[in-house]
Amino acid sequence: MTLSLTNEGKEYSGTLKRLKGSEPSPFASRMKPQMTEYWEPVPKKVEPGPYVMVPPPSDAIVLFDGKDLSKWKSRDGSEAKWKVEDGLFTVVKGTGDITTRQKFGDYQLHIEWRIPEDIQGQSQGRGNSGLFLQDLSDDLKIPDYWYEVQILDNYNNPTYVNGQAGSIYKQNPPLVNAMRKPGEWNVYDITYTAPRFNENGTLHSPARVTVFHNGILVQNNYEIRGHTAYIGMPAYKAPHGKAPISLQDHGDPSKAISFRNIWLREL
Amino acid sequence: MTLSLTNEGKEYSGTLKRLKGSEPSPFASRMKPQMTEYWEPVPKKVEPGPYVMVPPPSDAIVLFDGKDLSKWKSRDGSEAKWKVEDGLFTVVKGTGDITTRQKFGDYQLHIEWRIPEDIQGQSQGRGNSGLFLQDLSDDLKIPDYWYEVQILDNYNNPTYVNGQAGSIYKQNPPLVNAMRKPGEWNVYDITYTAPRFNENGTLHSPARVTVFHNGILVQNNYEIRGHTAYIGMPAYKAPHGKAPISLQDHGDPSKAISFRNIWLREL
Amino acid sequence: MTLSLTNEGKEYSGTLKRLKGSEPSPFASRMKPQMTEYWEPVPKKVEPGPYVMVPPPSDAIVLFDGKDLSKWKSRDGSEAKWKVEDGLFTVVKGTGDITTRQKFGDYQLHIEWRIPEDIQGQSQGRGNSGLFLQDLSDDLKIPDYWYEVQILDNYNNPTYVNGQAGSIYKQNPPLVNAMRKPGEWNVYDITYTAPRFNENGTLHSPARVTVFHNGILVQNNYEIRGHTAYIGMPAYKAPHGKAPISLQDHGDPSKAISFRNIWLREL
Amino acid sequence: MTLSLTNEGKEYSGTLKRLKGSEPSPFASRMKPQMTEYWEPVPKKVEPGPYVMVPPPSDAIVLFDGKDLSKWKSRDGSEAKWKVEDGLFTVVKGTGDITTRQKFGDYQLHIEWRIPEDIQGQSQGRGNSGLFLQDLSDDLKIPDYWYEVQILDNYNNPTYVNGQAGSIYKQNPPLVNAMRKPGEWNVYDITYTAPRFNENGTLHSPARVTVFHNGILVQNNYEIRGHTAYIGMPAYKAPHGKAPISLQDHGDPSKAISFRNIWLREL
Repeated sequence: MTLSLTNEGKEYSGTLKRLKGSEPSPFASRMKPQMTEYWEPVPKKVEPGPYVMVPPPSDAIVLFDGKDLSKWKSRDGSEAKWKVEDGLFTVVKGTGDITTRQKFGDYQLHIEWRIPEDIQGQSQGRGNSGLFLQDLSDDLKIPDYWYEVQILDNYNNPTYVNGQAGSIYKQNPPLVNAMRKPGEWNVYDITYTAPRFNENGTLHSPARVTVFHNGILVQNNYEIRGHTAYIGMPAYKAPHGKAPISLQDHGDPSKAISFRNIWLREL
Repeated sequence: MTLSLTNEGKEYSGTLKRLKGSEPSPFASRMKPQMTEYWEPVPKKVEPGPYVMVPPPSDAIVLFDGKDLSKWKSRDGSEAKWKVEDGLFTVVKGTGDITTRQKFGDYQLHIEWRIPEDIQGQSQGRGNSGLFLQDLSDDLKIPDYWYEVQILDNYNNPTYVNGQAGSIYKQNPPLVNAMRKPGEWNVYDITYTAPRFNENGTLHSPARVTVFHNGILVQNNYEIRGHTAYIGMPAYKAPHGKAPISLQDHGDPSKAISFRNIWLREL
Repeated sequence: MTLSLTNEGKEYSGTLKRLKGSEPSPFASRMKPQMTEYWEPVPKKVEPGPYVMVPPPSDAIVLFDGKDLSKWKSRDGSEAKWKVEDGLFTVVKGTGDITTRQKFGDYQLHIEWRIPEDIQGQSQGRGNSGLFLQDLSDDLKIPDYWYEVQILDNYNNPTYVNGQAGSIYKQNPPLVNAMRKPGEWNVYDITYTAPRFNENGTLHSPARVTVFHNGILVQNNYEIRGHTAYIGMPAYKAPHGKAPISLQDHGDPSKAISFRNIWLREL
Repeated sequence: MTLSLTNEGKEYSGTLKRLKGSEPSPFASRMKPQMTEYWEPVPKKVEPGPYVMVPPPSDAIVLFDGKDLSKWKSRDGSEAKWKVEDGLFTVVKGTGDITTRQKFGDYQLHIEWRIPEDIQGQSQGRGNSGLFLQDLSDDLKIPDYWYEVQILDNYNNPTYVNGQAGSIYKQNPPLVNAMRKPGEWNVYDITYTAPRFNENGTLHSPARVTVFHNGILVQNNYEIRGHTAYIGMPAYKAPHGKAPISLQDHGDPSKAISFRNIWLREL
C-alpha cells in the first residue's frame, strides 16, 4: 500500500512495512499537527473572582520567592537566563526553557503567570509558554518528552480547545475558560500524581492531574494519556521516576510573559 | 452461637441468625463507636499561609452571601434558625441541622468556618460540626445517611485521626493537619463527584472527593466507602440522585461555631 | 494556514477555521487510517491449551444455540441472512452486519469463532470480522458508532498490533497473541462495563472491558477511549444506554468465518 | 472513657489512650469476628455448566501437574506435607498451610478444588480453606497478613455472604453463588493486580482482583481494602513487592478438601 502526502511544498510517500521499536507507523510521523487539534465545543467563559495573593504554607518548597532563579537551570546545565526584577521573572526569548534543579514525583503546585497587558498575536502565537509537570527529555534523551499544562493568553483569543490555557496540551481542554485579562495575574493550583511503571517497563498507572485556574476547577483528576505529542498521538514511551518541572521558552513572536510565587508541596 | 456485650451498663446478647434486608449482622449494630476510630499515625501539622478572602466566580451559586439563610432550611422544612449577623452565621444549638433547599450532584464548593477564640472541650467535644456533601437522610428516610467532611477544632486537640478536621468522618484522615487556630477562619475548597447507581440499585461508582483545607491538599480524590457510620461500617444503602448539602448542629457542649462565604459551582 | 493532502489520487486542501459541532478539526477527517495503526511491539505468541466446549450457565441468555438466528436481525430490521448449519452459522458476505434484537448494558459474554482452514489473504484481508460490544450506529444515527473487539486470523499473519485478534480495534493491542490456527475454534470470554453519562450528556465513566482469548488474558479491564474510529481519533460522541451487540460483515475478500455457542449473562 | 466487653466468658475492659504504630484503637482488637460478617443480600444461585478440564497454555508456570508438591513448601521451609495421589493433592490437617517457593506480583491463575462428597458441618465449618493471593505473613513478620479468596462448601450451606466461596474473605461477597456440589470440581480463574506502594511506604494503588468461579464472574476488578482481617478492619499495613501464593490448612473439623491443575501466567 502506497500513501502520499503533501505538506508545505514537501511531498511524502511510502510503502507500509513493519518497523523496529515501539513507534507508531511511519505515517503517524507524517500526521499534521492540526490532526490532533480540535476546536469545539468551546469551553464556557467564567469570570473568576479578583486575584488574591496566597502565600506558601510552612512545608512548601519555594521554587521562586521573588529574588533569584537559583532553584532553576537551563537545559545545558548553565544558570537560568530569564530576567528577575520586581519580585517576578520574565522569559528571555531565545535563552531556552528553564528546569528545576530538584526532581519531583507527586506534588501540589502553586504558580502564577502574567500575560503582558499589550500582548499581540493570535491563536498559539499569543503569550505561549508551558508548564511541564514532569520533564523527562533530558534524562531519557527523548526530545520533547513531558506532560504539559498549557500557558497562553485565551482571554479573547480563540484557538484549538485542547491547546488553550488550562488544557492538558494536545489532550484535554479545560472544563471552562477561567482566564484573566492580559496584565492581570493568572494562578494555577495543581495536584499531580506521577505515573507508575512495572518492572518490565510497561505502564502500571497513568499520571493524573487536577488543575484549578484562578480558583476554578478546569481539570478534574484527568488521566494523562502520555507525553505531549505536538504531532501524532500521546504515549508513555519509557519508564521513569522523579523528574524536574520546566517552563517553556516557546518562541512564538509575541511579547514575553512573566511568573512569580511558585511553590510546591511533595505528596 | 451466643454473644454478649456490655456497654455503659447495658448488656447485649443474642443468637446468630440470618436477617432480612441488606444490613450487616446484628452484631455490627452492637459495635462500639470506638471500634472504627483510629489514633495513629497522627497527620503532620502544616502551618497554612494567612487567610485570604476569595470571592466567588461568575458562575457560582452563592449559598450564603452574608445577609440571610434563604437558601437553607431546617430538616422539618421550616426556616433555618441559625443566627445571622456581621456577614456570617452561627449555629444555634438545639435548633437542628440546616440543609440547602436546592439539591446537587457533582460540584466544586467553597466554605469558610470559624472556631470561637475561647473554645473549650476536648477530642470530639470541641467545636464539632460537619459538612454533609450529600444528605439523603430526609429523601431516603434512612437516619443519618450522608457523606461527611468533619468540622472540628484540631489546632491543638488530639482526637481519632479519622475524626479530625479535614477527615472523611470515620473513614479517612486528612493527609496533613492544616488547621488554623481558634478565632481565625478555616476554608474548605472541595471537589465532589457523586456516586452513580445501576438500574437494579447496586453501586456503579462510589463518590469521590478532593479537599483543600486552607489551601492545602488533605483528601486526594478519595473514594468514599459509603455513608457516614458513627457505629459500624460505611455502606451505600440505597441508590440516589441529587441531594441537599447540610451543616450539622452537633450537640457537643462547646461554644457554637460560625460560617460564611459559601458558594458552589455545579460540574 | 493552508494544508494540502493527496490520497488515492484525490487532493485535499483547506484553510483552518472554527467548526460547528464537537468534531475534531477538518484535518482530522483527512487523517489516513494508517496514522492510528501501530506495528510494534508485537505481542508475544502464546499457545493456548486445546479447545474445550464450555456450556452456558443457568442464568445465561443464549444468543445462538446452534439452531437459528432468531435472536439476531439485519440492520434494516429484516431477518438475519447469515447461514446456519451443523450447529454454527457463517457470514454470508454482502448481506450486512447482524445485530441482536435485545439491548444490553453490562454483561459477561462467551462467543466462539472459527477461521476457515483454507483462509487466504494477509493483514486485515484475512478472516476479518468484528464483535461490536455496544452498537449505537442505528439508535444514534451516527455511522459506525460502536466499541469493537477485533476478529481476524492472526495465527501467522502480521498486521498492525492494535488491529489484530484480541485488540480493542484501533485502540489497544492484546497483551499476547493467543490465536488458534485456521480451522480450529477460537473463544472470547468478555466482561464488559458500559459507559455512563451525565445528565448534560458528558461522559461520567468510560466503558471498560476484560477479554480472555482462548482462556488467556488479552485485555485487563481496559478503559475504552471512545467509539471505533477507522480514521481519526476515538471519542464518546453522544450519551446512550443499553445497545445491541453486533457481528460484522466486513467485506474483505477472504473466505467467510463462522460462529457458535454465543451466550451472555447480564451483570 | 472505659469500655467493657464479654466474649466466651472472658471479660475485657480498658481506658482509651493513644497508641504507638498505625494500628486502630485498642477497641478494634476487641471487635467480635461477627461484627464484620454480613448475611444479606444472599447472592443468587447460578448453576454453572458441567466441569471441563482446561489445560495450561504454553507460557504457564505449572504449580501442580498432578505429580508432586515440589513448587510448594510448609511455612517453616520444610517440604509441603499434604498428600499427593491420583493426580490431585489433599490437605493433611494439622500440617499447616502450604506456600509457593516462587514469589509473584501480577498474574492470571487457574486452580481447581474439590469438596469431599460426604462433607459434614455448617457455616464456616464445612470444607473451609483459603487461597492467599499474596501471602506476606512470613516476609513481613505480620501474622495472618494476606489477601484471600475464600474456599468453602456453599452448595447448600448458608454462611455470612462475605465469607462464602468466591468472596474476598471478610470484604466482598461474590456477585452470584456459582458453587458445584460436593464431590465435583470447582474452578477459580483469577486475574490479580498487586498493590503498589510509594517510596515513603504509603499506598499508591490497592490490589485488584477479578474472579470467575466455574466460568461465572463473581468478582469484577474488585479493589481489595487491605489484608484479610478476621477480627477488625482490613488495612494495608506495610509496603511489599512480590510474594508467595498460599493454600490454607484451616483447621475446621470437617473432612479435608483436594486441589489439582494449578497454573499461572505472570502478567
